[in-house]
Amino acid sequence: MTTRIDYGAIINEIFEAVKNEENTGEVAQYIPELSGVDPEKFGVYLTTLYGKGFGTGDWETRFSIQSISKVLSLSLAYSILGDKIWERVGVEPSGTPFNSLIQLETDNGIPRNPLINGGALVICDMLISELKDAPIDFLAFVRKLSGNPDLEYSAGIARSEKSVGYRNIALCNFIKSYGNIRNEPDKVLDFYFNMCSLEMNCRELTQTFMYLVDTHHVTSNSATLLSMSQTKRLNALMQTCGFYDESGEFSFKVGLPGKSGVGGGIVAIHPENYCIAVWSPKLNLKGNSYRGMKFLELFTTRTELSIF
Amino acid sequence: MTTRIDYGAIINEIFEAVKNEENTGEVAQYIPELSGVDPEKFGVYLTTLYGKGFGTGDWETRFSIQSISKVLSLSLAYSILGDKIWERVGVEPSGTPFNSLIQLETDNGIPRNPLINGGALVICDMLISELKDAPIDFLAFVRKLSGNPDLEYSAGIARSEKSVGYRNIALCNFIKSYGNIRNEPDKVLDFYFNMCSLEMNCRELTQTFMYLVDTHHVTSNSATLLSMSQTKRLNALMQTCGFYDESGEFSFKVGLPGKSGVGGGIVAIHPENYCIAVWSPKLNLKGNSYRGMKFLELFTTRTELSIF
Amino acid sequence: MTTRIDYGAIINEIFEAVKNEENTGEVAQYIPELSGVDPEKFGVYLTTLYGKGFGTGDWETRFSIQSISKVLSLSLAYSILGDKIWERVGVEPSGTPFNSLIQLETDNGIPRNPLINGGALVICDMLISELKDAPIDFLAFVRKLSGNPDLEYSAGIARSEKSVGYRNIALCNFIKSYGNIRNEPDKVLDFYFNMCSLEMNCRELTQTFMYLVDTHHVTSNSATLLSMSQTKRLNALMQTCGFYDESGEFSFKVGLPGKSGVGGGIVAIHPENYCIAVWSPKLNLKGNSYRGMKFLELFTTRTELSIF
Amino acid sequence: MTTRIDYGAIINEIFEAVKNEENTGEVAQYIPELSGVDPEKFGVYLTTLYGKGFGTGDWETRFSIQSISKVLSLSLAYSILGDKIWERVGVEPSGTPFNSLIQLETDNGIPRNPLINGGALVICDMLISELKDAPIDFLAFVRKLSGNPDLEYSAGIARSEKSVGYRNIALCNFIKSYGNIRNEPDKVLDFYFNMCSLEMNCRELTQTFMYLVDTHHVTSNSATLLSMSQTKRLNALMQTCGFYDESGEFSFKVGLPGKSGVGGGIVAIHPENYCIAVWSPKLNLKGNSYRGMKFLELFTTRTELSIF
Repeated sequence: MTTRIDYGAIINEIFEAVKNEENTGEVAQYIPELSGVDPEKFGVYLTTLYGKGFGTGDWETRFSIQSISKVLSLSLAYSILGDKIWERVGVEPSGTPFNSLIQLETDNGIPRNPLINGGALVICDMLISELKDAPIDFLAFVRKLSGNPDLEYSAGIARSEKSVGYRNIALCNFIKSYGNIRNEPDKVLDFYFNMCSLEMNCRELTQTFMYLVDTHHVTSNSATLLSMSQTKRLNALMQTCGFYDESGEFSFKVGLPGKSGVGGGIVAIHPENYCIAVWSPKLNLKGNSYRGMKFLELFTTRTELSIF
Repeated sequence: MTTRIDYGAIINEIFEAVKNEENTGEVAQYIPELSGVDPEKFGVYLTTLYGKGFGTGDWETRFSIQSISKVLSLSLAYSILGDKIWERVGVEPSGTPFNSLIQLETDNGIPRNPLINGGALVICDMLISELKDAPIDFLAFVRKLSGNPDLEYSAGIARSEKSVGYRNIALCNFIKSYGNIRNEPDKVLDFYFNMCSLEMNCRELTQTFMYLVDTHHVTSNSATLLSMSQTKRLNALMQTCGFYDESGEFSFKVGLPGKSGVGGGIVAIHPENYCIAVWSPKLNLKGNSYRGMKFLELFTTRTELSIF
Repeated sequence: MTTRIDYGAIINEIFEAVKNEENTGEVAQYIPELSGVDPEKFGVYLTTLYGKGFGTGDWETRFSIQSISKVLSLSLAYSILGDKIWERVGVEPSGTPFNSLIQLETDNGIPRNPLINGGALVICDMLISELKDAPIDFLAFVRKLSGNPDLEYSAGIARSEKSVGYRNIALCNFIKSYGNIRNEPDKVLDFYFNMCSLEMNCRELTQTFMYLVDTHHVTSNSATLLSMSQTKRLNALMQTCGFYDESGEFSFKVGLPGKSGVGGGIVAIHPENYCIAVWSPKLNLKGNSYRGMKFLELFTTRTELSIF
Repeated sequence: MTTRIDYGAIINEIFEAVKNEENTGEVAQYIPELSGVDPEKFGVYLTTLYGKGFGTGDWETRFSIQSISKVLSLSLAYSILGDKIWERVGVEPSGTPFNSLIQLETDNGIPRNPLINGGALVICDMLISELKDAPIDFLAFVRKLSGNPDLEYSAGIARSEKSVGYRNIALCNFIKSYGNIRNEPDKVLDFYFNMCSLEMNCRELTQTFMYLVDTHHVTSNSATLLSMSQTKRLNALMQTCGFYDESGEFSFKVGLPGKSGVGGGIVAIHPENYCIAVWSPKLNLKGNSYRGMKFLELFTTRTELSIF
């Protein structure tokens, strides 16, 4: 069925429509490296299960993928530790903003899910315990997954985020106070800020995330990564938890599993069909890309191809 | 693809496996009519998009569908009022138990979603304002939807629930204090308790919910009900919010949109494929059927047919 | 030392000063009987331990004492049941507004203290269980305490409050759902709304509350009421909990045990010295009389006679 | 009146009574320096307004005063900045444990009061901004206040607390993320841990705190410190906030302004009468000295001399 859809035409058409509307929201301001990005940047790329690609706009420009990286670190930890990871982090939507500490206090330091900051810090802590050198090994993992040996952290962004990342420092130390961080908070935070500083363009993002599209077949890259059941579960988790306290809204309007980052990127998965990445730096009040949300809502409405 | 699966055989096999395991949990105790149900009752029914049916165990025995009815009242309100309903109720997972008041206080009387008690009360209030006689008209709607003119409320259950329903009385008056209930709380509660007292068996449940399976084609019953986009959105909502604070877990393990009730019933939808209903009265700590959850987890794992 | 202070002169002086300042805030609006009160009414009365009285302004006009009555019902319950009452209600400041439900959910239906609405409802429930006819017996108790057989409930105010008292209905049913209300919620609410509708003028208020001033000596009225230790404890409770989430502010600025009501009245106690009542209907954002708070802050600063 | 009371005899009598009861609770365990203290240590000292002293038990042994020091830093900040400090910290009881982050998130980084950890960190931050060298200047201030040039921080305790103080590190960074900490969190925490490591014995504590007893007269030490009104307000604050979420209980049972520390010390003030300090390391579930609370309850009951 999907082969009959002319993705290229639809993407171009919706891209133009969204581009012609007002671009509201605010670029993330807390570090100069993010606030300095051109707010009018706008790119889209879609890669199908069968490897065909369609791009428009600024799809070749790399940007800071930020929280989108949480899916990748989670995948690596899940592939190494299996279901043991769920003893230290939940699978429920949080119902609160991404960096809230309230829930942690109620739940004794167990983050609700691995896609909010607290949960991602716990996953980083697991990887530090399991890997020889977590930042290096994680980068190698992402490079292999994407088939792209050029991917890099941005040292400048990582450094800047750490220098003002008081909320994340608070989160990490708070979880540590409950014993659910095993390594020193400083080490965990260093890895976390590195991970979030990964840079990709829209095409690279879709190529990296194809392991979540292709749940039935073995590909060269994901061969040793995750079972089909694990892959489906990661998609389910993105569906319910990928957009902080706007996860329900995204599921409701877009109907695909996905994950956003404060750099303005969103990646979404249509299992067995395609991966799509959108980038536009202006964020809505919930911290998700304004144009990214808009584009994807129109896209799944137009293609009539949500998972529901 | 789905036609190649032998649903009947798989259902029977998993049914036997689950039946042979220990049946843990507790039957809902707060009214005699529910607590008196045989805890070993266990039934399953599946109806495919093409109308084929497969049942096993106690699928012919009617039970109190309780909160499953919230999807039906929501569908009716959505079909009448369209997206206006989202001004008075959200689409986000609650992150808290089904009858929590905390979130309402934080959000000024706007329930997080229409599938928790507070949200369902607001939907009932809308229907009272829109319909001539809400309890009668809603029953007629469900009968038409299911193609079954025999469906009935249980007056005994409704009366019993009202006599001890202090938490729901509190919820309704609390929302009223914020102005988000327009009619008298007593009238809203009467309708709510009636609605929850609806009785169906597993087959009737699947037949009633086929309008959420068949999102592409017009059927005689759902013809005037909901647009395809609305149908997909209701499925998305069940996916993120259908199981209270276990919604993430259900999505993660089962991977289908669904809704549970304290009577022990669960209905789940595989869009364009099938509707499945499971009934087993013993509930886990989150208030969802223990065997129902178990059965569906094994079922989607075995059929490799979650939506992800 | 206290006898050397010229209370009359100080009261007049501060009264004029406050009267000449702008009278900000809002008269309670939720029922016509309260919203219709002249917002410029302003009265003060002080009665000393030795029975001398000083009044100024509208001290002879009766008004609805509202939540001030909670101290009286608490005193009656304490005198009957002793320290058993603390099994069902706490003695800690709530840190939240007077009609919050959040804390109740966290604490399983045990209100933080008897001077917030939830706690007062539990006290009403105790009195219904202990007395023959709670509304009649409570009124008789207050009449005896005040030495004034003319005191009355306002049937109009009680009726009006009940007809819009959704938040209190919610509170009562919510606590009932935890089992900490023993009688039917409707009966408890009827008594509660009656109790709050009591009407007194400033002088009557001070005379009624003299049992909390005179902790060392036995008076005719309080002879059988409370032990000295119990009296001191009630004062301590008013000190920490008498002004909802402005209790710390009142303690900080005024430095006396006291209790306010949404009718605009405040009563404050200086143990072994005097009782003072102020009435001015305009309320600040926390629901306490704007001029009442102002007057008392100036009064204890001027007399240098707080309890600290 | 107070001169007629034989404090020495009453203290000895109650001391023996409490000593003969079971000593329940737990010594603070989170650092070796505190957990290693002899749990049976028990000392009391009382100094009257006129300078007479009465001690019993281990009143000569120094211990870690911990949070009691928060009153001293608050007094210094109040004397320097006056009422400006209340723009950055409140005066309301918190209703939550001493190191809770929930309230901070609700109130945008403004701690409820200066006697919980968050508020004390903000006060430390103010002092760092105002003083040349906060740790040195604060120590000099306390030495002058107590008339005791020998008082010292415990470097070992400060170092140990910092190495495991994840919760306080979280608190400080969390408040910093709201902008209510102006200096670097590390510097604020260093001062905070130093301050809490101050060591005194019971007699030294009472001598240090006499400035809160003597609100009418000028003494050599407090001459330049606080106005009478400020002194009264600090007492009021200790009354409502000095014992975390057990402040109401302490006020209710003991009826004096006071402050506790996890080292097992409690200091309490009877304005114009006396200061009393009790030390016993075993803490109740709320983190306050078990025997300290017990002793003071019996003491004010026996002397009939609470402030109420």
